[in-house]
Amino acid sequence: MNHKKILVIGGGTGTYTILSGLKKYPLDLSVIVTMMDNGGSNRIIRDEFGLLPTSDLRQCMIALSEEKPKDLLRKLFTYRYSSGVGISGMTFGNLYMAALTDIYGSQELAIEKTCEFLDVKGKILPVTFDSTNLVAVYDNGREVLGEHAIDEPDEESSTHKIVGLYVLPKAKANKKATGELKKVDMIVLGPGDLYTSILPNIVIDGIKEAISTSSAKVVFVLNLMTKYGQTQNFKASDYLKEAEKYLGKNIIDCVIVNSGKFTEKALEWYANTGAKPVEDDLKNLKGIKVVRGDFVDKNIYVKSKADKLTRSLIRHDSDKLAKVVVSLL
Amino acid sequence: MNHKKILVIGGGTGTYTILSGLKKYPLDLSVIVTMMDNGGSNRIIRDEFGLLPTSDLRQCMIALSEEKPKDLLRKLFTYRYSSGVGISGMTFGNLYMAALTDIYGSQELAIEKTCEFLDVKGKILPVTFDSTNLVAVYDNGREVLGEHAIDEPDEESSTHKIVGLYVLPKAKANKKATGELKKVDMIVLGPGDLYTSILPNIVIDGIKEAISTSSAKVVFVLNLMTKYGQTQNFKASDYLKEAEKYLGKNIIDCVIVNSGKFTEKALEWYANTGAKPVEDDLKNLKGIKVVRGDFVDKNIYVKSKADKLTRSLIRHDSDKLAKVVVSLL
Repeated sequence: MNHKKILVIGGGTGTYTILSGLKKYPLDLSVIVTMMDNGGSNRIIRDEFGLLPTSDLRQCMIALSEEKPKDLLRKLFTYRYSSGVGISGMTFGNLYMAALTDIYGSQELAIEKTCEFLDVKGKILPVTFDSTNLVAVYDNGREVLGEHAIDEPDEESSTHKIVGLYVLPKAKANKKATGELKKVDMIVLGPGDLYTSILPNIVIDGIKEAISTSSAKVVFVLNLMTKYGQTQNFKASDYLKEAEKYLGKNIIDCVIVNSGKFTEKALEWYANTGAKPVEDDLKNLKGIKVVRGDFVDKNIYVKSKADKLTRSLIRHDSDKLAKVVVSLL
Repeated sequence: MNHKKILVIGGGTGTYTILSGLKKYPLDLSVIVTMMDNGGSNRIIRDEFGLLPTSDLRQCMIALSEEKPKDLLRKLFTYRYSSGVGISGMTFGNLYMAALTDIYGSQELAIEKTCEFLDVKGKILPVTFDSTNLVAVYDNGREVLGEHAIDEPDEESSTHKIVGLYVLPKAKANKKATGELKKVDMIVLGPGDLYTSILPNIVIDGIKEAISTSSAKVVFVLNLMTKYGQTQNFKASDYLKEAEKYLGKNIIDCVIVNSGKFTEKALEWYANTGAKPVEDDLKNLKGIKVVRGDFVDKNIYVKSKADKLTRSLIRHDSDKLAKVVVSLL
């Protein structure tokens, strides 16, 4: 029997969430993942080992792994060292990938071998194998290089809007990724940070074209919360406008918007970071279906002490999100 | 059906070799492993992470693993980094164990989980869970602390004989290890470096007693080559004498001695290190059976560039060795 094919575009915890939900369905899953991370452990992997960053990839591998001791694997791959000179702050996963790439001679092969080893169901496709960096252009003309600096902006950047996004140097899409985009029944954008998880894939040479010529239904999962310095004060319509700016008009077929409520505790925490729930102001959209529902995971996530980056506490519920996505097939 | 029980005592590549051979037979295998390594990567694991060294343990885990992508696992666990400030020279395996111990809160549990994960057939028993160091006493009265300094002695030590061996601080045997010694049909000592792989187990409080009260047949596998600064100029009878000094008389039932030849190339390499084939001078032994045969692995091993320690190039052939051991059951 041929299963329906769903391809997710993203990177980061949002992608982990949706894949974890979707893998419970009889589907052919694939995922295109950003390769521009340069924060924390990934900076060392790039600068000292000369490798592509793989934190985003590894999250997808674990989400799609059929290997039994999954809890152990998930804990291990996301584990961050807090001891050891030169080791503290590194993730186990990055050290693992560095070792395997050296053993097999290429990172592409190392990724393949890891997928085999973890018995990954589905295709995990790095958006590019070229080493490149994300550049954001702000509305004051300033350009900032590096996914990490865009994700956690300095004071100047955080008071300005992002008006452009590109990669430096230019990078070509992984051919397996563009090929897959044309074969699937549905392409799901997100959930994930707009400028650092979703759009970094779209600005890679060949991805936008592959999406626009694909006959797949394109679904855009909006964020639950705005993000300080990135999508500050964004309403649902702002997300959509920005996505269409990079993807083109008449590409997105459906938008998934949360209408569920958050706990007081989570909102308090977010208030300190300048983030707030995304307001649903979508109406009278031509040709775009809007799907509303409660997609909030009621658990609150706490980050590890050794983690030097900011992580979101409010997340999509993987089962609720997967259910609505599958219903749109 | 109850399989015959064989327990190997050692640590290091010799133990890996014999276990790899024995696991092809329908046996109940167990292994008692030294926990005193303090060289290279293990020094960092002990000093900076406060953990017990596990390089020897991991070699046993891989030898007894039933996990399919064994080649990948073996390569990974023995992989040594050559890049990365503070990471270069570390083994992947030690970083893995550090991460898992932090995740599970105890090294004993981390070892158990790893055995489960690798589908290890048999019991891997650290000789002790106490953090301790090996001390060698030389015939000039000098005492040297640390397995690494004994394994690769300085100029002074290398011209003197080891006349005593103990651990500092005192360490108690793992109760599962002493318990197992009493249950098995055969105890195999080695192959492995006499003073840094085999005897370090015997000097742990409780091990010698457990061996002497066990009804198991005790088999001693002699080294193929002498070792510079450790067993220099040792003949077969010297090995036996030293082993009996620590184990007691009338404990060893059988000695396995090599009579096979080595390649010229290997002997040349060894000549530079001051090592030579162990001469078989055993005769008229009372109550000890001597088994002779060609146990030489004809392959030559090359160490990785990032490896800062000296490794042996001539090794026992695991199949030949296992065959003769099993024949003695």
